[in-house]
Amino acid sequence: MFEFEIAARDGGARAGRLITPHGAIETPSFVAVGTQGTVKAVSPEELRAIGVQVIIANTYHLHLQPGEDLIEKLGGLHRFMNWNGPLMTDSGGFQVFSLGAGREHGVGKIAPIFPEEEARLRDRGGHFRAADGGKPLVKVDEDGVEFISHLDGSRHRFTPEKVIQIERKLGADIILVLDECTSPLHDYAYTKEALERTHRWALRALREFERADDGRQALFGIVQGGAYRDLREASARFISSLDFHGFAIGGSLGKSKQEMLQVLEWTVPLLPEGRPRHLLGIGEIADIFAAVQRGIDMFDCVAPTRMARNGALFSREAEAFRLHIRNARYRDDPRPVEAGCGCYTCRNYSRAYLRHLFEAKELLAMRLATIHNLYFLEELMRQVRAAIREGHLAELKREWLP
Amino acid sequence: MFEFEIAARDGGARAGRLITPHGAIETPSFVAVGTQGTVKAVSPEELRAIGVQVIIANTYHLHLQPGEDLIEKLGGLHRFMNWNGPLMTDSGGFQVFSLGAGREHGVGKIAPIFPEEEARLRDRGGHFRAADGGKPLVKVDEDGVEFISHLDGSRHRFTPEKVIQIERKLGADIILVLDECTSPLHDYAYTKEALERTHRWALRALREFERADDGRQALFGIVQGGAYRDLREASARFISSLDFHGFAIGGSLGKSKQEMLQVLEWTVPLLPEGRPRHLLGIGEIADIFAAVQRGIDMFDCVAPTRMARNGALFSREAEAFRLHIRNARYRDDPRPVEAGCGCYTCRNYSRAYLRHLFEAKELLAMRLATIHNLYFLEELMRQVRAAIREGHLAELKREWLP
Repeated sequence: MFEFEIAARDGGARAGRLITPHGAIETPSFVAVGTQGTVKAVSPEELRAIGVQVIIANTYHLHLQPGEDLIEKLGGLHRFMNWNGPLMTDSGGFQVFSLGAGREHGVGKIAPIFPEEEARLRDRGGHFRAADGGKPLVKVDEDGVEFISHLDGSRHRFTPEKVIQIERKLGADIILVLDECTSPLHDYAYTKEALERTHRWALRALREFERADDGRQALFGIVQGGAYRDLREASARFISSLDFHGFAIGGSLGKSKQEMLQVLEWTVPLLPEGRPRHLLGIGEIADIFAAVQRGIDMFDCVAPTRMARNGALFSREAEAFRLHIRNARYRDDPRPVEAGCGCYTCRNYSRAYLRHLFEAKELLAMRLATIHNLYFLEELMRQVRAAIREGHLAELKREWLP
Repeated sequence: MFEFEIAARDGGARAGRLITPHGAIETPSFVAVGTQGTVKAVSPEELRAIGVQVIIANTYHLHLQPGEDLIEKLGGLHRFMNWNGPLMTDSGGFQVFSLGAGREHGVGKIAPIFPEEEARLRDRGGHFRAADGGKPLVKVDEDGVEFISHLDGSRHRFTPEKVIQIERKLGADIILVLDECTSPLHDYAYTKEALERTHRWALRALREFERADDGRQALFGIVQGGAYRDLREASARFISSLDFHGFAIGGSLGKSKQEMLQVLEWTVPLLPEGRPRHLLGIGEIADIFAAVQRGIDMFDCVAPTRMARNGALFSREAEAFRLHIRNARYRDDPRPVEAGCGCYTCRNYSRAYLRHLFEAKELLAMRLATIHNLYFLEELMRQVRAAIREGHLAELKREWLP
C-alpha cells in the first residue's frame, strides 16, 4: 500500500509522490505538526483548503493524553481527529530528549532555528538552562527510557517495542522508531554510545513492527550521530541496511546552519535512492531549499504554526520573511498580510484587522495567522515541486533568497 | 432601508422580519455577541453556516481598541471584520455600568443568569464584590459619563452625542443610545434619578442621530427603570414616544427570573406594536421562551459562546441543557455532543475528541464548542419561529421545558 515514485530530478533534488493508504503525498512536502491530534488553531477542512497533504502527530503526547487505547477504541487517530489524509506519528524520542539532555543542556533538538535563539545561545556561552536548573526528567538504559510526564509527574517507560505498539494503536500511515536524540553539547563518546543503542533499538522496533505488519503502516528508521561525520555515516549505512519504508534524519544537527548542511551532505548520499527521506524538525525557508537540494523529500516543523500564534507572519517583503503583525506600523494598514497571496486570511482581512485581533487577544487571530503561514509554506512547496520538474530549482532559490 | 414586518402572532409572540441595508433578520432572532469585532473563536463563514443572522459589537470596546476612526478609515466595521450581514453596536452603557455601579455592587447587569451565580449571590448575602473592593471607575453627570479604561487606565468621556458619533463611524446597521444601567441594588430614588437622566440622554442621542441621518442606520432607544413598575412603565411610555426605529429593554431586570418576567410584562405592552423589541443580555433557553412569549423579537447574550469556551455544551439530554464536556464520563464517549445535531462539530467529532481538546488546551476546542452552542441556539430559534407561524409555541415550549 506504500509506493514511492520519483518523477523528476534537479541536481540532488527530487520531485516525487509517496502513496499511502490515505492518499498520495507530492514531494518535496512540508508535514504540518499536529502534536496532540490537532494542528493548533486550524481545522482539517482548513488544512485541506490550504493544501496541507500530511500531518505529523506525536506518540509521547498522545500516549500521555488521551492514551492510545482510547484512540484505538474510537477508531484510530485519523477518525479521532477527523483527518482522512496521510498521517504520521513521531516516536516521542525527541520529547523524551527535551525532558532529559535537552533540558539539562538547555538546548533544542537541533542547532538553534531562529536567529534570535542563536543570539541568545551565544549570549549565554553556547547554551542556556531551564528555569529550574534543567534537572533531567529522563533515564536512558539499554531496554529503553524512563521519563516523568510533563503533565502530572507520573512515571512512564518507553521501549522500542512499546512505541511501535502505541503507534500501531494510533494507526498513522507512517510511523517512526524510537531513537535517542543527543544534544549538540554531548561529546563524541556519549554520542557514539547513544547511537549504538539507537541502532539496537531500531532493530528491535523493526522486529516488533514486522511481527504484526498488516501492510497498512510504513515504518521509517531514524539516522542519528550528532554532528560527527563518522557517526552520521555509520548510522546512515546501518539504518539503510534495514528494511525500513523510509528514512528520517534526526537528532542534533550541530550548532550552526553550516553544520546542519554538512550532516545532510554526509548522510543523504548513503540513503537508498528509491525511498523517501524525512528531515525532522526543519522548516525555515532557507533550510527548506538547502535540504531539498540535498535530496530531502519531507520535513516537519512547528515554527510556521508557532510563529503564527506569536504574530510573526510569513511575507516575502519582510526581513527574514517575518512580518511582525503587532508592530504599530500596521495599525491602520488596509493591505493583506502579503500582496497577491491566495490564502483565506489575505483574501478577507487587512493587516490592521489582524493586528487588532492580536492586540485584543482574540482567538481568531491565531487561526488567521496560522492559515496564512501554512499557506505561504505550501505555496513555496508547490513552487519547489514545479521548479524541480522544470529543472529550475536553483533559479527559484535565487528568486526567494537573493 | 429599514422595515419591520410581522408575519404571524401566537399569543404575545410575533414572528417577523427586520430588513436592514445588509439583509433581513428573521425574528425572533438571537444576536451573536462579537464585542471586539469578532465572535470569539469563530469565523464569519462559520457564523453564516450556523445560521447566525446578526452580530452585536460593542462601542465601548471598539472605541478603546482599535478606535472608531481607524475602523471608519478601513471602510467601516462590516468590512473590517468581514461580516456583510446585519450588524448592531451596543452603546457601551452596560460596560460603563460594569466599571461603575456593577463593580461597586458586585453584580451583573441583570438578575444572575446562571444558577451557580445565583447560588453565589445568595451565599454572599445578595451580592458579591470585586476583588479590589469594587472601587467604581466611573463618574456619571448630566453631560455624560467619565470612565477609566479597563485596558490601560486612561480617562475617557462618553456623552449621548459622542456615542452616536462613534457608532456612525463604526457603521453598524442598528445602533443603540447611551443609557445609564442601574444595579438591582440601587434604591428607588437613585434608579428614578438615573432613569430621568437616561431619558434626557435619549433625546440628545436622537437629535444627534437625526442631525446626520443618511438612512443607513437605525437607532434603537433603551427602556430602563430597574425592577420598579412605575419607572419601567414611565420609561416605556417616554421612550416609545420618541421616533426610534426600535426599542431595547436594558438595565437591571431585578433579582430573580420572576422579576425579569414582570419587567417584560410591565414594559412590552407599552411599546409600539409595529417596531422591533430587543431584550439586552438574555440568552438562557427558559428565558428565550419567556421573552418571546411576551413579545420580544431579538436578544443577545454572551452566555452561549462563553459557556462554550468553558466546555459547557448545550444539550437537550443534559441537566439545565449543559453538558460539561470535561467531565471524566465523556473520556471515551464516541457519540457526538448531541444526537441528531446538524452542526459541523457534531457531524465530525466525538465527545471524547472534544474532551481531549479541552484537556490538552487546544484552540480548536473552543471553536468546536462555540459552533455547537451557536448552532443549538439558532436551531431553537428556527423552531420558535416556525412554531409561532403555526400557532404551536406553547407546545414547543412544553417540549423543551417539560
